[in-house]
This record gives sequence, C-alpha cells and structure tokens, in this order.
Amino acid sequence: MRIDVITLNPRIIESASEEGILKQALKKGLLELFVHQLRDYARDKHKTVDDRPYGGGPGMVLKCEPIFEAVEAIGWCKDKDTVVYPSPSGIKFDQQLAKDLSKRNRLIFICGQYEGIDQRVIDQLVDLEICIGDYILSSGTIAALVIIDSVVRLIPGVLGNKDSILDESFEGFLLEGPQYTRPRKFRDWEVPAVLLSGDHRRILLWRKRLSEEKTEKMRKDLWEARKKGERI
Amino acid sequence: MRIDVITLNPRIIESASEEGILKQALKKGLLELFVHQLRDYARDKHKTVDDRPYGGGPGMVLKCEPIFEAVEAIGWCKDKDTVVYPSPSGIKFDQQLAKDLSKRNRLIFICGQYEGIDQRVIDQLVDLEICIGDYILSSGTIAALVIIDSVVRLIPGVLGNKDSILDESFEGFLLEGPQYTRPRKFRDWEVPAVLLSGDHRRILLWRKRLSEEKTEKMRKDLWEARKKGERI
Repeated sequence: MRIDVITLNPRIIESASEEGILKQALKKGLLELFVHQLRDYARDKHKTVDDRPYGGGPGMVLKCEPIFEAVEAIGWCKDKDTVVYPSPSGIKFDQQLAKDLSKRNRLIFICGQYEGIDQRVIDQLVDLEICIGDYILSSGTIAALVIIDSVVRLIPGVLGNKDSILDESFEGFLLEGPQYTRPRKFRDWEVPAVLLSGDHRRILLWRKRLSEEKTEKMRKDLWEARKKGERI
Repeated sequence: MRIDVITLNPRIIESASEEGILKQALKKGLLELFVHQLRDYARDKHKTVDDRPYGGGPGMVLKCEPIFEAVEAIGWCKDKDTVVYPSPSGIKFDQQLAKDLSKRNRLIFICGQYEGIDQRVIDQLVDLEICIGDYILSSGTIAALVIIDSVVRLIPGVLGNKDSILDESFEGFLLEGPQYTRPRKFRDWEVPAVLLSGDHRRILLWRKRLSEEKTEKMRKDLWEARKKGERI
C-alpha cells in the first residue's frame, strides 16, 4: 500500500513512522509512506495556505490552490486513489472502515486545521470525509495518524502473529477482559487463581464472563447491539 | 496544567509538542509536558517491560512493576492527579469528557500497546480507561496524543480566538457546513453567491440549513439526538 499525507505538520507523521507498526510495515516493504509539506505548494512569497472565510466568521480556512497543486503534483489518480479528509464533519471511523481502507491501493490524506478547508477541495478531490470521534482536535494530522495506524496494522503480514488481529475489542462486540502477566503476586495483589489452573475451558469461560461484564458496564451501546445480534 | 506521558514511543508525543497547539500552550506557560520512557523503569538488564499472558493467548502484556515504578517516580498523587489509560475497552471519549479533563490539575497517561496491560495497573492506578473510537490502534500513545490535543486546546488562553471554540461540530449537535475562502472563482468552481451578498441574516440561515443537511446525511445519530433535544 502507498500512503501520501499532505499536511502542515509533517513531523508528527514522520516521527510516528520511525517507531512501532509503521516502521515495521515500511521495513517489510508492505507500505510506502510519503509526507508532503502543504506550504511547499503555496505560490506567494509568504507561503500562504489559509485565508479568512467568505461570509464572515472566526478562524481561517485552508485555500484551494495549494491543496489542488499538492494533490496533482504527487500523481493523484482519480479513479484508483482514495483521498481521505479527516474532519469532525465526516462519517464515523470504525473497525469496518479500517478494514475496507486496508484493501485500497493508495490513500492520500489531506490534513486540515484551523477552522476548516475550502469546500471545493471536498467537492472535487475528497472521496471520504472521516471523523475519528465526537471531539474536536486542533489538527487533522493527528486524526490522519490514527486512521493510518489502524489501517496499516490490518495489512496482511504487518503484524507478526496473525492471531493477534482476531479476538480483539470491536471485532466481535465484546470488550477485552482483564489480562495478567508475571509476577504472580505483585505487592498485595495476586493473579486470579483460575488463570493458573491450566484448565483451558474454565479460563475461556472466565474470560468470556468478564468480557461480557465489562462490555455491559462500560459500553451499553455495544452490549445492546450484541444482544440484538447486530453488527456495529 | 501538567501532563505526564509514560510510553514506549516518546518521540510521537515529543514531535507533536514541537508544533501547533501543544507548542503554543507550552510557550504560553499554560502547559507543562513530561514524556517518560517506560523502559527506563524496567529493572532487569534486558529492560523487559512485557511478558506472556497468564492463562495463555496471543500477544504480550505490559508488566506491573515498571509501570508502578514510573508512576511513583514522577510523584503521582492519588488524590489530586488523574491517571488515564487509553484503551479500546474504556469509556467513550467525547467533547464533554475533553472539557472535564481540561479542568484537571494534572493528567498522567499510561500508554499500552501489544495485547494490553496487567489488570493490577488498571485496578490500582488508573482513574479513567478511555476509548477514542471503535477501532483498534497498535499503540496507546497515538490515542493519548488525541486526548491530549483535544484537552489542551480547551485550556483557557491556549487558542488565540475565543470564538473559535464556539460554533464547532459537536458543541451543539450540528456538523459544520461548508466554508469558502479566496479566490472567488477557482478553475470552474465559484463561491456560492449568498456568501458574497453581505446579507448576514441570509448567510446565517444558509449556513444553518447546510449544517442541518450535512448532519442528517452524515450522522443520523447526532441528527436524531438533536431532534429529541438530547445532549450527546
């Protein structure tokens, strides 16, 4: 997969790619990642990328021209590439959408900030306006990083252990229950005896019960959906 | 506000703090940010921070000891500080929770990765287990960055223009409608005439209508909640 990120804050993506899953994916040749400074595509000598909104209002809006020039300069192919604009006004990002995106050939992220972005960019270039959650961020680059991380880990071969993609929260409606590792006793707190029993069936049932209890307590929405047998 | 982040990937947070809102908040003296490498608190010569889960299963679990030692070494005060563990199994992060956290004195983030974290950390140290969305990330550090960014921008004085906190998506159920800036005509696409009319009442009504249309189209959940007059 190839990912291009057009942003005013390239360092955030670049640093993230020097560690963890992105580094592994790059090293294995399963990912190509290109980060582009939007300001390099501004034509005036002040490298202006934003301006005040027509019709008034607070804040600034990212201008059309530098974004169109950037997208076109990096060889955007309208029919093959998927252009993503992370924004609080988009469709909700979830694991299903992450899976879908992990099968695309090339993703291009346009990262906004300030108040927003000229609507002509959204109308003409953007395929998916995606919202990572119901909160406001100062920078679309951070939202892009979230989407990139969750998508890249789903590319076949990126995670070492195939199993670790299965059996996770959201994949089957239940949150993960408690996990323990050594030492068996830390200060006053011991690992639950069932986990030391070696009885795999009992362990499985115990884990399932605690997963269910946690889901019911923390996430009524997932719990209700599970009871209805819906897919969220 | 003081924020401490305990992580295996300090560079992600450090880079983000060199740009944008975090940099501004640090410069204005409204934020103190300390990033701690969890591995520095591992005692063995291999600097081991994780181990296999009791009871079997794929992946690795972060061990108790280095985390307890890190939290205690940075002067954790149980009664005053808020310890946050970003995790897919937490309560859902939203703008209301961001506002709540922006009023706390000190936040300490414990960033997991791999399969999870020893439950004794959650039971004994963590005040809030927070999920930023229904998708799986490879690293809790990225989720911590999302929470930090959305919280820091709400600290009074961090954003230059007080207005830009108001009138945003989620703050009042509606997604933001389209924004435009110069040029008036870009290639074939013109700015809608109403925005050039100078008629503020018409502009307001036009913006409201497009906000409503977008919310109804993109986010049925917010739209239904708005109709019911509920607060999400």
